[in-house]
Amino acid sequence: MPADEFDIIRRLFAPLARHRFARGLRDDVAVIEPERELIVTADAIVEGVHFLPDDPLESVAKKALRVNVSDLAAKGALPVGFLLTLMWPKHRDALELESFARGLGEDLALFEAALLGGDTTGTAGPLAISVTAFGVPHGKRTPARADAQPGDQLWVTGVIGDAWLGFRSLTRAPDVAGASAAEQLDAHAASVRAAYRTPSPPLAFAPHIAALAHASMDVSDGLIGDAAKLAEASGVGIRIDAEAIPLSAAGHAHCAGGDAALIELITGGDDYQALFTAAPGARAAVISAARESETNVALIGDVTEGAGVRVVKGSRELTIATAGHRHNLGR
Amino acid sequence: MPADEFDIIRRLFAPLARHRFARGLRDDVAVIEPERELIVTADAIVEGVHFLPDDPLESVAKKALRVNVSDLAAKGALPVGFLLTLMWPKHRDALELESFARGLGEDLALFEAALLGGDTTGTAGPLAISVTAFGVPHGKRTPARADAQPGDQLWVTGVIGDAWLGFRSLTRAPDVAGASAAEQLDAHAASVRAAYRTPSPPLAFAPHIAALAHASMDVSDGLIGDAAKLAEASGVGIRIDAEAIPLSAAGHAHCAGGDAALIELITGGDDYQALFTAAPGARAAVISAARESETNVALIGDVTEGAGVRVVKGSRELTIATAGHRHNLGR
Repeated sequence: MPADEFDIIRRLFAPLARHRFARGLRDDVAVIEPERELIVTADAIVEGVHFLPDDPLESVAKKALRVNVSDLAAKGALPVGFLLTLMWPKHRDALELESFARGLGEDLALFEAALLGGDTTGTAGPLAISVTAFGVPHGKRTPARADAQPGDQLWVTGVIGDAWLGFRSLTRAPDVAGASAAEQLDAHAASVRAAYRTPSPPLAFAPHIAALAHASMDVSDGLIGDAAKLAEASGVGIRIDAEAIPLSAAGHAHCAGGDAALIELITGGDDYQALFTAAPGARAAVISAARESETNVALIGDVTEGAGVRVVKGSRELTIATAGHRHNLGR
Repeated sequence: MPADEFDIIRRLFAPLARHRFARGLRDDVAVIEPERELIVTADAIVEGVHFLPDDPLESVAKKALRVNVSDLAAKGALPVGFLLTLMWPKHRDALELESFARGLGEDLALFEAALLGGDTTGTAGPLAISVTAFGVPHGKRTPARADAQPGDQLWVTGVIGDAWLGFRSLTRAPDVAGASAAEQLDAHAASVRAAYRTPSPPLAFAPHIAALAHASMDVSDGLIGDAAKLAEASGVGIRIDAEAIPLSAAGHAHCAGGDAALIELITGGDDYQALFTAAPGARAAVISAARESETNVALIGDVTEGAGVRVVKGSRELTIATAGHRHNLGR
C-alpha cells in the first residue's frame, strides 16, 4: 500500500464516518451509547473465496457490508454502524481503493448507517475485508437459530439460487469459444451476476421478522445446509417442499435440467436472504407484511419433531448428498 | 481448511464463548446488553506484516487479542468481549488451529473476557486475523487522541523498543554463520522476541488512565509517529525528552550504538503501550497509581502550543526523518 494508513483513512473514509460515535475516525476506538440491546456480527469476505479477483471494487465493498447486513436483517435488526478492517494487497492501486470507498459510501447512504472505525493494513495475499456490523433490534426479542418449534411454518425471503448462477456465469470458461458464446447469449446473465456480486438482504422485512418470527437466520451457505443448522440448533426436523422454493426466471430455466440442477441452486449459497419460522396462525400476517414491505416471502415447508432436513418434490424425497455444500472457490 | 466451518467453531471456540451474549456461538449474531457506553475497536494482524510465518500460533492468537486490548487499555476501558474473524490458509493444518485456539483461550481467561462470535473462512493467502474488541469504560469519560492541552505532561507506560528489537532478532539472517552466532549469544533475545510476539498492554493501569489522562492512545506504529498523531488530533505541539523514554536493558544496550540506534527504537512500532497526557498537578497521582498497579509509567515530555513533535536529547534536537516509520514487513 503506497500511502500512509492514516492518510488513506482520513481522505477516503472520514467522510463516511460522520456519526459522533465514530469520533471522526481520528481515534483508536468508537464509543457507542446504545439505548438498549445492540446486535453485533462479524463476517469477512476474501478475494478468490467470496468474490472474484476481477469483481468491481464498488461491488466488493457493498458485498462486504451486505453479508453482514444480511445477518442483522434476519435477526430483525436495523443496521446502525460498521467497523471495517481492510487488508489491501500491495499490487492493487489507489484508484481501486477509491472505487472501494465509493461503493462503501453508496451503501452506507442507502442503509443510513455509519462507518464507526476500523483498521487498514497491507497484505501479500488476496484482498480481504472483515466487517463488524452493529444493529438495534426492531422488536422486543432477537430471534435465534434455536427458536423453531414443531408445528411452525418455514419461510424464506427473496429468491434462492441466483447468486450461484451468477457465480457460475462469472467463472465458467468465459474465453473459450462456444462456451463463451452460450454465456453471452444468456439473457439472465446480468441479473444473476448482480445477485452474486451485490446481494440484497431483506432489510425492509426485518421489522416483521422481529414481530412474527420464532427462529430466524440468514441463508449464506446454501438453503439446505442453513436449514440443517436451524434444525440442529432448535432440536427439530424440517420438511421443505422443493416446488415451493422461490426461484427467479433464471432459476426456473436452470431447473429444466432436473433434480440435480435444482439441488445445485438450493445448496449453492451466497443468497443472503432470511430463513425463518413462524406459528401457523401468523401466516396471514406474514403475507400481509410481505406485501406491505414489497418483499418476496415464500412459505417453503414445516418444522416437525425429530431431526434433519427432508426435501420433498411431489411424492418423492430428494437425496441431497451434502447439506451445507459450498460452491465457492476453496471455501 | 479441511473440516467444516461450523464444526471447527463449535469444537474449538464454543468452550471459549460461554458468556450469554455469545449465544454459545450457535447463532449468527451476538446480543450485547450494555449498562452504558461501549468502547469498540477493530484491528487485524496479517502473517508477514504483523507477525512472522513461523511464530507459534498460541502467540499469534494472543497478539491478535492484545493489539486490540491495547486500544481499550489506552482508552481507560476494561475488555469484556471479542469477535474473531479468522482467515485460515489451506496449507496450515488442524493442529495449528488447535494451538491458535489454546492461545486464545489462555488470553480470554487472563482477561476474564468472552469470545462473542465471529467468522472463519479459508484463504489462498497469508493467515489473517481480524478482531473486534468490546470494552466498558472504567471512568466517566473515554480520553480521545484529541484531548491534549498545552501545559500537559506526556507519559508512556511500559518500555519502548523491545518489540522492534525482537522483530530484528527474529528476522536477521538466523541461519548465516556468524550473524547467527551473534544472535544466539544475545542474552536479551528471549525477552525481546516475547515482546514482539506477545505484547503486554497496560491493563492494570487502565482505570488510572480513565481517572487521570487528558488525551490517551496506544503506541503501535512507533512512539514518535503516534505522538505526532496525538499532537495533530489535539492541535498541539509535543516535546519529548529522549533520555526519559523508558528502555529495557536490551534497549539500553542497543542505544550504545548512538542516536541512530535510539531512533530505531522510538520509531520502530509494535510496542502496544499507552501514551497519555495529564495535567502537571496529576503528577503525584500518576506516580502513585503506577506503583499501586505495578505498571512502569514514565514522564517523557510536555505538551506545548504549536504543532509537531520535537525530540530533544540534552541540549540537542534529534532529526527524525520519518515520524510514523514502520519496520514491519511491507506494512
